[in-house]
Amino acid sequence: MPTPDTLVEGYIAMWNEPDAQRRRELVAQTVTDDASYVDPLMSGSGVDGIDAMIAAAQQQYPGHRFTLLTGPDAHNDRVRFSWAIAPDGGEPIAVGHDFATLAPDGRMSSITGFLDQP
Amino acid sequence: MPTPDTLVEGYIAMWNEPDAQRRRELVAQTVTDDASYVDPLMSGSGVDGIDAMIAAAQQQYPGHRFTLLTGPDAHNDRVRFSWAIAPDGGEPIAVGHDFATLAPDGRMSSITGFLDQP
Repeated sequence: MPTPDTLVEGYIAMWNEPDAQRRRELVAQTVTDDASYVDPLMSGSGVDGIDAMIAAAQQQYPGHRFTLLTGPDAHNDRVRFSWAIAPDGGEPIAVGHDFATLAPDGRMSSITGFLDQP
Repeated sequence: MPTPDTLVEGYIAMWNEPDAQRRRELVAQTVTDDASYVDPLMSGSGVDGIDAMIAAAQQQYPGHRFTLLTGPDAHNDRVRFSWAIAPDGGEPIAVGHDFATLAPDGRMSSITGFLDQP
């Protein structure tokens, strides 16, 4: 079972992965088959739905990468962390917090994203 | 259906309400019958379980009150906000963030609390 650090490292990596096959592998490692993701701008369900959502986000913000800002902070089957998204070498265009509930196998089953004031 | 502001106002009020009957009414207004609450220190399920959990917390910290620090920040069926707990007239002994998923009737069905660095 992944530690919160490993899990969230994989989560950030799946958002950043440019190779479609490798990205889907990372998504499948990180979220359950019936996982759901929702934030103020997008949503996705299941490994395929979340993978497609990330692919669309990557097309919308080419050359941007997510980095972990704080956390992960975990207790029981819950985890939270904050992140930034920035163009290569540039200032962040958005920062936010994500909160997840974990399945018994340690993958994320429900993820909620919130946008913070920059 | 309550607005996020009204909902979270009721949530803070239920944690602070000293009268047992009034407290249970506030809990029942704020969370669903099958709601679950979990933070690093305690957990509770359902209106009765969450009411009993709050009663125990009130006995552990007599004379302390919760106040809303930031939020609520809401989108879709999710809400987050931050809070402080302090003795009457004193400095906070803890601050934290809560995240909730809302049921179709607008009450909270799942609540996760996290403690922030003071």
